[in-house]
Amino acid sequence: MNIIIAGAGAMGSRFAAALNHTGNHIILIDGWPANVNEVRFNGMHVNVNGVETVEHFDIYGPDEINETTPKADLIIVLVKSYQLDKTFESLKPVITDDTYVICVMNGIGHEDTIRKYVPLSHILLGTTLWTARLDGPGHPVFTGEGAVSLQCFDEEGKEKCAEFIDLLNKAGLNACYSYDLRSVIYEKACITGVLNGLTAILECNINEFRQLNAQMGPVAKQIIHEFAMVAAAEDIHQNEDTFLQEVDKYMENNADSFTTMYYDLIRSHRITEIEYMNGAISRKGRKYGIETPYCDLITALIHAKESLLNAF
Amino acid sequence: MNIIIAGAGAMGSRFAAALNHTGNHIILIDGWPANVNEVRFNGMHVNVNGVETVEHFDIYGPDEINETTPKADLIIVLVKSYQLDKTFESLKPVITDDTYVICVMNGIGHEDTIRKYVPLSHILLGTTLWTARLDGPGHPVFTGEGAVSLQCFDEEGKEKCAEFIDLLNKAGLNACYSYDLRSVIYEKACITGVLNGLTAILECNINEFRQLNAQMGPVAKQIIHEFAMVAAAEDIHQNEDTFLQEVDKYMENNADSFTTMYYDLIRSHRITEIEYMNGAISRKGRKYGIETPYCDLITALIHAKESLLNAF
Repeated sequence: MNIIIAGAGAMGSRFAAALNHTGNHIILIDGWPANVNEVRFNGMHVNVNGVETVEHFDIYGPDEINETTPKADLIIVLVKSYQLDKTFESLKPVITDDTYVICVMNGIGHEDTIRKYVPLSHILLGTTLWTARLDGPGHPVFTGEGAVSLQCFDEEGKEKCAEFIDLLNKAGLNACYSYDLRSVIYEKACITGVLNGLTAILECNINEFRQLNAQMGPVAKQIIHEFAMVAAAEDIHQNEDTFLQEVDKYMENNADSFTTMYYDLIRSHRITEIEYMNGAISRKGRKYGIETPYCDLITALIHAKESLLNAF
Repeated sequence: MNIIIAGAGAMGSRFAAALNHTGNHIILIDGWPANVNEVRFNGMHVNVNGVETVEHFDIYGPDEINETTPKADLIIVLVKSYQLDKTFESLKPVITDDTYVICVMNGIGHEDTIRKYVPLSHILLGTTLWTARLDGPGHPVFTGEGAVSLQCFDEEGKEKCAEFIDLLNKAGLNACYSYDLRSVIYEKACITGVLNGLTAILECNINEFRQLNAQMGPVAKQIIHEFAMVAAAEDIHQNEDTFLQEVDKYMENNADSFTTMYYDLIRSHRITEIEYMNGAISRKGRKYGIETPYCDLITALIHAKESLLNAF
């Protein structure tokens, strides 16, 4: 089976390394030339809990994909949210009627983008609790344990989904079928919706944010309320207290970390994924006639900061 | 007449210098020991449009006020909003039944604080368009022209108000009576409500903020809407477009400046006056049952930033 992993960043590298010895042909696509060159010429130096191995892959830049590239049986997409559409545009030559897509990216509404390229029955949406970081081009570092939950929103794709779950388990990725993925996606999105934008605006880490409970506690509740209202409009009825508990649990488990949005925007001056977090709630809120002032303002502030920092 | 000027910062120094040759006894009260010492021992070095003179004053720290301090016929108060209550607490020994107060500080609701110390008929509220800066202890710098508008919200104080307006005009401060001061106060508060909190959060100057119109234009409109709704609940009916025009005009005239909140919070790590700007709208909104999510969130973010920066 030809498996294309689109996005060989930290998490894409984790999936690639895990799948590399399952007897399938793994092809990586990545938009960072330094990363492509490093993996192509020196291999991927994979550090798992301190033990380094070198894995070899076919790896291409998005502009190197053409009719001669092997057709994809499965595309696992792990790019930045705002790159998703452009990524699929460049993947068109490898997509056939039999191509399936696994998307375990954070954020809300990715299926709407992917549906432009493959039918809903061929899209397996999911979430992952694996973590990963990239210490430099071709040098991913993996610690800890994780899991993958997958669901196909079209009944027709369920059988194929089971097949891919077997594949991911063979790769040690600890996958299972979820019957309630939309709730899980909203739950994860709600965590980032509370933490990512605000920690980037305030330029603080998660522990510092947690200490700001007097000011940020009521703000978190309002954001959660907006997420829950929009979720309810999509027939996902999640208790706001449950969301809040998930946020608290996440803060406790990640106290010393900075959020990815803090890293992206404040440290690296990169465009953020806010449009797929609070921005998605604002868009959906407008669609359903639900007011989402906190998400609106946070989204506007992050875009303003992107503009001030000339984020790219 | 004994005139106490409470707060010998930039603007207090401007009023003090202007009033110093009107034949009255001017007494300064200031909470910054370095400023008190400089003015006491070396005089106030006043720079008006590049020309320096030295003015001499009686000046005291707040803890030096006692029963032997001359009673105040007039108190002109020009302190930070959050110092107002404490300032009046320390001024108690000089307040008599005949003491009048002029307050031309920015912000909303100062009369509620001052009323705890003198009756409403003795409070002359106002706004000023004069500007001033302090280059160091005892070294204020004044440029440009300005004006003062005053109003007494109690009919009884109107006559006395006219008398003080004559005094301010004798001092060259270009004062006049206003019949619509609450509108003017809301108009000024709305300008700071849009600009101060957001430029401090985004760490930008007014011109940079102005360039962010795509993101911040809709935000400004929402903030103005909240100010206008609360003003309407207090029977001040101001067109939102008028507020917006005032904000635009202010941005145009002050493009190269940073706001005082940016200076206070980001540069000097000082407590801000947010509670008398957006925070006042939030409080009044709760009182009148009006939702003010933008003011709520901006107030919370500024307090969070104060906490993160250990502002004092």
